[in-house]
Amino acid sequence: MASHKIRVIQFGLGPIGQSCIRTMLSKDFAIDLVGAIDIDPDKVGHDVSDILGLEKPIGVVISPDAAKTLADTRPDIVVHTTTSFLDRMYDQLMLCARAGVNVISSTEELSYPFDRYPELARELDAVARENVVSILGTGVNPGYAMDALALMATGVCTEVFKIEVNRVVDAGLRRLPLQLKVGARLSVDEFNEKKAAGTLGHIGLVESVRLVADGLGWPLDRIDEQLEPVVSDRQVVTPYLTVEEGQVAGIHHSAKGYIGDNCVLDLDLKMYVGAEEPRDAVLVTGDPPMDLVVRGGIFGDTATVATLINGIPSVLNATPGLKTVKDVPVLRAFGTKWMREAVGV
Amino acid sequence: MASHKIRVIQFGLGPIGQSCIRTMLSKDFAIDLVGAIDIDPDKVGHDVSDILGLEKPIGVVISPDAAKTLADTRPDIVVHTTTSFLDRMYDQLMLCARAGVNVISSTEELSYPFDRYPELARELDAVARENVVSILGTGVNPGYAMDALALMATGVCTEVFKIEVNRVVDAGLRRLPLQLKVGARLSVDEFNEKKAAGTLGHIGLVESVRLVADGLGWPLDRIDEQLEPVVSDRQVVTPYLTVEEGQVAGIHHSAKGYIGDNCVLDLDLKMYVGAEEPRDAVLVTGDPPMDLVVRGGIFGDTATVATLINGIPSVLNATPGLKTVKDVPVLRAFGTKWMREAVGV
Repeated sequence: MASHKIRVIQFGLGPIGQSCIRTMLSKDFAIDLVGAIDIDPDKVGHDVSDILGLEKPIGVVISPDAAKTLADTRPDIVVHTTTSFLDRMYDQLMLCARAGVNVISSTEELSYPFDRYPELARELDAVARENVVSILGTGVNPGYAMDALALMATGVCTEVFKIEVNRVVDAGLRRLPLQLKVGARLSVDEFNEKKAAGTLGHIGLVESVRLVADGLGWPLDRIDEQLEPVVSDRQVVTPYLTVEEGQVAGIHHSAKGYIGDNCVLDLDLKMYVGAEEPRDAVLVTGDPPMDLVVRGGIFGDTATVATLINGIPSVLNATPGLKTVKDVPVLRAFGTKWMREAVGV
Repeated sequence: MASHKIRVIQFGLGPIGQSCIRTMLSKDFAIDLVGAIDIDPDKVGHDVSDILGLEKPIGVVISPDAAKTLADTRPDIVVHTTTSFLDRMYDQLMLCARAGVNVISSTEELSYPFDRYPELARELDAVARENVVSILGTGVNPGYAMDALALMATGVCTEVFKIEVNRVVDAGLRRLPLQLKVGARLSVDEFNEKKAAGTLGHIGLVESVRLVADGLGWPLDRIDEQLEPVVSDRQVVTPYLTVEEGQVAGIHHSAKGYIGDNCVLDLDLKMYVGAEEPRDAVLVTGDPPMDLVVRGGIFGDTATVATLINGIPSVLNATPGLKTVKDVPVLRAFGTKWMREAVGV
């Protein structure tokens, strides 16, 4: 079956990229990791196994030279996890596309780039088509919890008036960088300073609003975005830190889409340590109404990696161009234990 | 915008077909009903408005001649709602495909025809490709609640061991034919006689199992199907009938897919009058686990129609051939009130 394996380069070996590699190595009957790209001097030149703490070398050495790695290995697809911001990684995407290589990326701003970067999006789409490759930005959020799942919920409705999405994440169960990212342990003043500097908050909420609106053909007149601290009403202890009563526990971030005076899309995200009743809920006011909830919520650290790896077959099968998650088939697990059974290895 | 409307023929004007027409007429800025086909002598020759009880004729006369209607109207797509069984409507599909017309159909057995009718499925796919059209079987169940939604739930998992789907429908809230179809008011003996005659039970459960397994690349060794009566433990009164204590209230129908001795897919459907806590639940044992539930359940009468109409754009955009819901983009509402706003009519 070796000839049917999907040849993948991992582009970006931060925590998410490393998790992607671990997941791909566990699916080695279906996926062949053929290259790894990162510019971090501490990683360049090392076998991937050194960075992941594996026992044996896997024969893939981390290179800072993306063009050379692409040319040398001729992969089917790049799994791309370098930054949240499209303008910072645009060149990386263009390099892949020009090399004739498909891309699936965790870049939040790529999940729906047409409004924030209309020009870059147009160019990416054109170059992807020219080179007969597909490019998709995805992840758990944006990419699934607050957009694709919301669209899917409306699929059984003949009429839809409003969609409310509530994602509540207990940051205390996540890794330390996420706890710090949501401002845990800050004072309210410190939170507001960081907020003013633009270094707090979830990236991609507005992208999710635009993605859902586009999927439904809804002409939004405006989007209101709000970011507030969640202040802890008690002491909360996580494995990494302690939030005292009165300190910031995390963020309450919302984006509302309006048509005229009507709030038609209401995306509400709370990520804080000690969050009660974590969940992903989609409430559709329509005919019939839909009240969908993922009880306990979707565990983001694993789910982001899952969407990137599970999305690989969709990207490979997609028509050429710059895609969003509304353009590709229903995401489903790829390369599971029972699939391995089918392949018989 | 007239030139951008989708030209549709409704093929089959039973209750579901009539609901499809009502829904399409409510979306007349996006959809143009150009023909109607039915062989019922009570319907043939009548304007569609007569059958639907509309005030004014809409200028579409019901014809029993499918070939002529297809040739005369040159539609983009046929919305097909004539029977649950593929072998009974195969000719109708072939006629549409040979006329170069796409089809979206409520035929339960079409939702995953490759095992029950491998030969017919192969021919349909070949003829569809030859004529550059797409054919899709869908609906709320099969097509969404117990298969597409289950696949979607696994999209955020890096590993999946087992999927359990529970659909509980209060048949007392549905129309009379459905209440009778699930055996409400029968004695247990009568239920078992009808069961032996094969005239009871939900159609498409095995198709859902096969669809999910195929979507995940899981090689099932066998499927166990079971149909039992739900016996009422009290008197239940619906707008149409009364079920006494000890009478049959409805069906408990299950299909389990196995790999070796492992039950990896467990689809469980209860449809009975007086059902408590109606819901559509998907439980994924995996990493991360997923516990997704549609509280109150998905209202089937409306939802079936919604999947057919909402699926139209997907079928029109699909590559040619015989498709299943796992092959087309995430289903989402089409032609809603706010979309009408965008079109400006």
